[in-house]
Amino acid sequence: MEKRGVAILGSTGSIGTTALRVLARHADRFSVAALTAFSNEKLLREQANEFRPAFAELVTNGGRECLVSAATRSDVDIVLNAVVGAAGLDATLAALEAGKRVALANKETLVMAGHLVRKAMQKGGGEIVPVDSEHSAILQCLAGRNRADVRRVVLTASGGPFRDWPREKVQRATADEALRHPTWSMGKKITVDSATLANKALEVIEAHFLFDLEFDQIDVVVHPQSVVHSFVEFVDGSVLAQVGVPSMELPVLYALTHPGRLSDTGIPRFDPVALSPLTFEPVKHDTFPLLRMGISAGHAGGAAPAVFNAANEQAVELFLQGKMPFGDIAPAIESALSRHSTARSDSREAVLAADAGARATVKEHFGC
Amino acid sequence: MEKRGVAILGSTGSIGTTALRVLARHADRFSVAALTAFSNEKLLREQANEFRPAFAELVTNGGRECLVSAATRSDVDIVLNAVVGAAGLDATLAALEAGKRVALANKETLVMAGHLVRKAMQKGGGEIVPVDSEHSAILQCLAGRNRADVRRVVLTASGGPFRDWPREKVQRATADEALRHPTWSMGKKITVDSATLANKALEVIEAHFLFDLEFDQIDVVVHPQSVVHSFVEFVDGSVLAQVGVPSMELPVLYALTHPGRLSDTGIPRFDPVALSPLTFEPVKHDTFPLLRMGISAGHAGGAAPAVFNAANEQAVELFLQGKMPFGDIAPAIESALSRHSTARSDSREAVLAADAGARATVKEHFGC
Repeated sequence: MEKRGVAILGSTGSIGTTALRVLARHADRFSVAALTAFSNEKLLREQANEFRPAFAELVTNGGRECLVSAATRSDVDIVLNAVVGAAGLDATLAALEAGKRVALANKETLVMAGHLVRKAMQKGGGEIVPVDSEHSAILQCLAGRNRADVRRVVLTASGGPFRDWPREKVQRATADEALRHPTWSMGKKITVDSATLANKALEVIEAHFLFDLEFDQIDVVVHPQSVVHSFVEFVDGSVLAQVGVPSMELPVLYALTHPGRLSDTGIPRFDPVALSPLTFEPVKHDTFPLLRMGISAGHAGGAAPAVFNAANEQAVELFLQGKMPFGDIAPAIESALSRHSTARSDSREAVLAADAGARATVKEHFGC
Repeated sequence: MEKRGVAILGSTGSIGTTALRVLARHADRFSVAALTAFSNEKLLREQANEFRPAFAELVTNGGRECLVSAATRSDVDIVLNAVVGAAGLDATLAALEAGKRVALANKETLVMAGHLVRKAMQKGGGEIVPVDSEHSAILQCLAGRNRADVRRVVLTASGGPFRDWPREKVQRATADEALRHPTWSMGKKITVDSATLANKALEVIEAHFLFDLEFDQIDVVVHPQSVVHSFVEFVDGSVLAQVGVPSMELPVLYALTHPGRLSDTGIPRFDPVALSPLTFEPVKHDTFPLLRMGISAGHAGGAAPAVFNAANEQAVELFLQGKMPFGDIAPAIESALSRHSTARSDSREAVLAADAGARATVKEHFGC
């Protein structure tokens, strides 16, 4: 069987290193054709020495074009896009236009430009397979099923480190506190997004685009153990769930093999007794306003989701730098939305302009 | 769209009345073509007046042939076999040979004569769709999937009313106590089987035949809330589950519509917060020896599963009559297995002879 070539954009991050662990176990089926990293030159070199890709480049040296080059190579069948934030957009569009499968860990690009991504898929025949654990769960519940039979999906949310905190304490939370995620070990930006629930808003918008769901077909429930990765409810009331130990190895592997599966004993074995009990709680919207704010932006459409995403990225950056209190993240994004959400969004340039405007608003008004 | 004709064998029992509730909601898709009941003439007459089947007969009047007549009628497409115990065998075989879909709530026939059932399917082109909540869950997780990708299934067991009782107290349990099932409202025989876990042994054997699984691919976990109806683990370590409020309406409806689904708002809506927490425990094999005993009988094959099933039916009958203590059920079945499990099983007659021998042994040695 011919090996499928994989490009990993963001190979030194959390998803990238997880993917290389998985690919090392399946070297008979996949070859690592290209690696890009943002700044960790030492680790990129080590990875290149181990996996011997034909292409390995630092974005800080090669510019963002290096992402597009890696994503569109002829020896690449699958592009794992694990770039953090809006920087991943061009590579996703280019890969889809080149007919590749995009294993998408970069939810931001789908959120900011879902309609452009759809156009690129239609133009080039590429496809997106999600790498998020929640969307992978939904895809696994839906694979081989009639999409018209879906009534709704329920995304699970860990609730983050502040799930049990009173609202006032959350407002004053520090970056160190936000980075202590209870169940998932992830990059810094996504970990803060889990603490604000902005991440779940991005995932709702992502689910809307990935699975052609209306926003009122997407619910969120807090599930602190992160064992049930999401639910799909069908029109007859039946519900399927995909469950397992929290580990990104499975979503990465499944994105490579979907709709098939490969035997893999390296993924932690499911033991319901060890994982018991599983609990579910409603979202505290008063404490975590970004979930509803992001969903509203998704529902409004146009530039609004791009503005939400960009303002959030900028606010999280300032928060991590100690320049913005946790409690100002939501007002900062709200301010950007009220200024920029009606901007044009009919081209990549328009979306990037809205993105830039949102960032500027957050910086001007809230960076201190 | 032409309506599909449904025969309900055992229409006045728990599954039968549930099925008629479901069919009343989907009268545009299904017609009730035939009804049979064991002894409840009054309710059968009421049902016949409401649903106007062309055939409605009491088994106590028409003899067991009436089950076969109902199951093989030309206006019947789907036979819901909800007869209790071994009495359902002939109708299942006849329906399969006549090319019908059998919606099987009568697990005993598959347990006692799985190989004969398979032959009947091959001969007539019929198919079995399970109505048990656990097997329906597995089928729903598997539908549209590659069966070769399955690593194992995990059947959930409520644990029954004696889950938390010390072994000595369980040994002395009364019929009244055994009939207080915590999560499912069912007939008496199956409720006692839930208390002994014999029911789960029968389900393991049923799963072996239904899904072509080896016995070491089938595990059981106690799940007192009966919300997760079963798990399917795939070769890559991913696990799907089918979940929902305990209600037999969904398994009945799904058995009619598989692999499709019909919109149905009558089935209780899934609410993970209301159903929280979900817990899982290991089986206490010392207190509930029938699970392993039944699985061993299934593994041994031949007449052993039929003997296990028949001895269990007879023992439960004596227990319900107050003629056998709860603690004697397991030894009674063990005695029947040691005497009859190597009997012939290559024909319907041989299986029925083994069945009769097992019942006689239990009656002679343990009825008091």
